Parts: sequence; C-alpha cells; structure tokens
Amino acid sequence: MKLSDLGERKLIEIASSILEQDPDEILGLGVDDAAAKPICEDLYLVMHTDVVVESTDRLPGQSYRDLAWKAVTANISDIAAKGAKPYALLSAIGIPGIYSLEVFEELMAGLRDSSSTYGCYIVGGDLSSSRELFIALAILGLTHRDRIMGRRGAKPGDLVCITGEIGYTSLAYRVLFDEWCIDSDLRRIVLDRAYRPIARLKEGLALASTGVVSSCMDISDGLAISLNTLSEVNNVSIIIDHIPIPREVLEAVGRYSVDPIDLVLYGGGEEYELLFTVKPDGLKLVEDKLSSLKSSFTVIGRVSEGAGVYFTSGRRVEARGWQHFLDWGSKPTS
Amino acid sequence: MKLSDLGERKLIEIASSILEQDPDEILGLGVDDAAAKPICEDLYLVMHTDVVVESTDRLPGQSYRDLAWKAVTANISDIAAKGAKPYALLSAIGIPGIYSLEVFEELMAGLRDSSSTYGCYIVGGDLSSSRELFIALAILGLTHRDRIMGRRGAKPGDLVCITGEIGYTSLAYRVLFDEWCIDSDLRRIVLDRAYRPIARLKEGLALASTGVVSSCMDISDGLAISLNTLSEVNNVSIIIDHIPIPREVLEAVGRYSVDPIDLVLYGGGEEYELLFTVKPDGLKLVEDKLSSLKSSFTVIGRVSEGAGVYFTSGRRVEARGWQHFLDWGSKPTS
Repeated sequence: MKLSDLGERKLIEIASSILEQDPDEILGLGVDDAAAKPICEDLYLVMHTDVVVESTDRLPGQSYRDLAWKAVTANISDIAAKGAKPYALLSAIGIPGIYSLEVFEELMAGLRDSSSTYGCYIVGGDLSSSRELFIALAILGLTHRDRIMGRRGAKPGDLVCITGEIGYTSLAYRVLFDEWCIDSDLRRIVLDRAYRPIARLKEGLALASTGVVSSCMDISDGLAISLNTLSEVNNVSIIIDHIPIPREVLEAVGRYSVDPIDLVLYGGGEEYELLFTVKPDGLKLVEDKLSSLKSSFTVIGRVSEGAGVYFTSGRRVEARGWQHFLDWGSKPTS
Repeated sequence: MKLSDLGERKLIEIASSILEQDPDEILGLGVDDAAAKPICEDLYLVMHTDVVVESTDRLPGQSYRDLAWKAVTANISDIAAKGAKPYALLSAIGIPGIYSLEVFEELMAGLRDSSSTYGCYIVGGDLSSSRELFIALAILGLTHRDRIMGRRGAKPGDLVCITGEIGYTSLAYRVLFDEWCIDSDLRRIVLDRAYRPIARLKEGLALASTGVVSSCMDISDGLAISLNTLSEVNNVSIIIDHIPIPREVLEAVGRYSVDPIDLVLYGGGEEYELLFTVKPDGLKLVEDKLSSLKSSFTVIGRVSEGAGVYFTSGRRVEARGWQHFLDWGSKPTS
C-alpha cells in the first residue's frame, strides 16, 4: 500500500502506534501537535517540529524569504497554542546544490526576521544538499505546569472561541490556484496573509495566563479539521453558531457561486488563529485579557455531549480539508 | 553563484553571519555543532539538529530501518560530545507519497529502536509529502554548566585523544563505492558499523564528569576535518603522532595501493567516535573513567602553539573530507 492511499492523519496514527510514548510527556504523542515535559521544578519544556517542503508548501509567487518566515510562524503558532514562551529554534535545511546563493541568503534573512519578531533566536542548524528545498524547524518553549493549554480538556458547556477573523487564506488560495479576480487592495491583503502569516503568540500567552481556557490549538490544518480534532480528542460534540468571516472576503466570494462558509471551512488552512474553549464563567476574563492586547476574538459555538461538529441548523462540519499525501499535487507550486 | 560552488562550511559561515547569535547561548552559532543555553538554575539545555537525506546519505544496501537508526545516532552523538544526557527527540520526516507503508513502518521502527537504545523518546514529529525522503531530527539534552564540553577550550600542552579505533567506515565506503573485496567476516563488521553506527553516549557522559576534558567533538565529518576544526576554533596547532587503526583494517587496505592513514583521514566520516582534549594532569582520571566502562581510547597527539594539524613527521593533515554540496553526487546511493 502506498502512503498516498493513506493520508497524513492515518500515518500519524500508525507512527504513534509504533513509537513509544514518553511516560513524562503530558500532551500525548499523536494527540497533540506539541509535546510538553517537566524539565525543572514546575517548569515544562514545550516542543514542536514543523517542516515546510517546497513542492508541497511553497505558494505561487511566494518569495523564499517569506517561505522561511512562514516556516517560523508555523512553529511559533504551535507553542503559542500551548501558552509557552519561545526559548529557542533549531533549523535543518535541505537545498539543491544548483540553487543560487541569493536563495540561501533570502532563506536566512527570513529566518532571522521572523525569529526576531517573535523574540527568539535560531540557536543551531544543519544543512544538507537534497533534491528539493525543505526547512525543518524545531521550536522549544517554556511554561509552567498549570499554564499549559493542551488539545484535551474541553468539557460540555464550555464556549468555543477563535481569535481574529478567518477566510483570508481561503480566498488567497482561490486567487492563486483558481485565478479568481478580486479587488487589488484586497488581493494584496489576502496574499500578504498567505505569504507572511503572523502567529498569535501574545494572544496564546495571554490566554494561558487566564487559567480558564480548557483546551487550545491553532487552525493551521483548516477550520473544519481543527474543529473535528478538538471534538474527537475530547469525546464531545461541538455546536457552531457563527464563523467570523471579514466582510470584504464575503463580498469577494459573493461574486462567485461558492458558499463562503464551505470555502472557509474546507478551502483554507495555514491560518494561524487560535481555536480555544473557555469555561462558561471565564469569558469575561478572556475578554479583558485579549482586549488589553487590542486582539479580537469571537465565540463561535459551544461544547456539548456527544460527537461530531454541527451548525445549530444541524448541518454537519466534516473532517476534511487539505491533507498531506492524500492531496499530494493538488496544491501546485510556482 | 551556485551553492555547489561554495560547499557546506562556507554556507554555514554565511548563515551564521546573517542569523543573530542568542546572547544566552554559550557554544557559539557556526562554531559548535550544538547549542547550549541556561534553562533553570545551573541546568543547561543542549540542542542539536541533524538531517539525513536519502539521495545524499543513504548508503547502497542500507535498509530504511538502519537509515532511521543512523539518523538518531548522528543526533545523539552530538549531544554526547557535549556531555549532555538525552532529554527528548523530535522528528520531521518528508517522504514521497509513492513510497510504501512498509518503508514508513521500517523508518518508525528504526527511530523507536535507536531512541530506546539511547534511553530517549521521540516526543513529537511532523510528516510531509516531499520529492525525496529526509529525516530531520532535533535532539535535546540536559547537563550542568560546569559539565558542558564545548569545541572551544583546548590549550597548548593538552593531550589529544580519541575513543575507540577508526577506519571501519572508510573501509566500508571503499567496499560500497569502489567494489573493494575483503574478507566476508570483516565485510560484515565494516558494513554493520557504516549502516548502524553507535554513538559514544556513555563515554561522553563519563568524560564530562571528569572535569579535565578541555574540548570535545565527534568526528562525524571525518577525522581530518574534525582535527582541523578543533585547531581553528581554538587557535592552536595539533601535532599527531599516532592514529588507532584496527589491524584487520590495515591488512585489508594493505592489499590495495592506498595509504591507510590517507584513507582514514580523508576517506571516512560518519564514524561516531569522540575527539577530545585533556589537561595534561587529567589523563589518569580519564583512563579510570573509561576503563570502568570497558571503553578504549587512545592519546593521538598534543595541542601546541600555532596553527594547523601536523604529524610529528611534519606532514600536514589537510582540512578535507566529504562535504555537502561540494561533493554532491560523489557518494552514490543505491
């Protein structure tokens, strides 16, 4: 059987069944995207690795500097979702020998700019010749035991929330892959968000400090998959009543015969907003913390008994979106 | 200018000049292969990343299980050389979608076997479809401030030592790439060493505990390059009087018109012995520690004022060996 018949999520399941779980690690191999382990007294090290592969991940028109920026953002986002402060980044790069020095320098500049933006340094790396470009980063973050936000922890009655608004990336993909024509200002905005996304680091740290967030993850795999993951790992159902899509995105989508909700749920990904659940009496605290950062968030639904993700209308949110291997080749590169 | 015109070491220099040095990191970006940073009181986290790329690193006949084993060994070796105890491993893997599930399972089994051998766990990972197979691992280790062995620290008068014996890998490469015919028992030994090498973890920890080791690194880049690196980063000269090559390797090489010293210096690499320097009055302590582990080591020379690496005969040991990019394509894969 070929890997492309299985898809990334099935392969992660297989990998988790072969590898052994570190008994000191608390988030769960194959359950959470990050790992957390005690390191000294009540201090925990949060660890994550995320790789960007040119043929799979580089968007048409995306510069190498932005590709490296995005690789750092993807890593920072995962420890932000755990509420951990960046401690160090490691970078392993494979690159074909025929690439120019300029490409290499752009990659390094992108790594420097982005890590510095998030208050972190690349402390070490490895470099190899390879048949295609890849950037494998490992991010380490520090936090305290009682501040770690895992994927597990959501309980019926909790409110489901998301930072910011979503849909920019979904629209960017239609512009890049389906040649949608949109207003030039909006085009610039959505491409900038897709090429050079920002991780919600300060929001993640603020959420962790409240003590009322019961679970948290980023939505980099796409909103529909992320909601379903949260539902599955917590053995709960999630009922959605509202998705915060920016007005200009709704207007642009309106010109094509596409349901904007479908587009945002299934046609996006690599948007680095945080999806989190809050204990019912904790909402005010979250509002205060995030508004002091001038960061917006929206209550999009609630956690309920049962299984699956549904709109209040009863319409189901399926666990689909872009998956490595299964969708191999469907997201073309420049 | 193409990367293949520059070579790995020049590119690391360029990368180090663009990236910023973390002021808390003590080993030095571009100087040491690993990084070390305080994490809690006098506890330091030692970090390293090492990537294995199939087209560059997989040896003819090497199984995927052994390739994954070797990837872990390469990572463990670098923190062993710093005297740090493994804390956790992260693994980012890129693999073509046309590969079979069996290959994937072999890789996972290799990661599991090797990490477990070194007393460590894979705590997290990422998986991506890519045009060629790569395994990018990040290893984290813990140690105390006064136990870290850096590459810097060797002083004139110190003794230069190496664990074990070397030359098995150099001979294996001749068997694999130049079709050398050797005794079948020896062939099995040298191929096993090349396919499934062992990192000197317990030796590294023992050396660090002595307090008399002034610098340490592994010789994975080849003995000649490693000796020259040690000389350069310490602004000293190294005078070699003896290289411990196993008798059966000498005998096998003797049948071909190749200088065994040249072969071992320049034709090897990926041998995970530790190269270290010892303060003159510390030799007895090192002998006691390593012999209690039943581990052998050899004093191969001494540190002196000046620059460069020489044999006592005056013959120079040049800084050459296999380098990524410059030698791209010269080490064929199966």
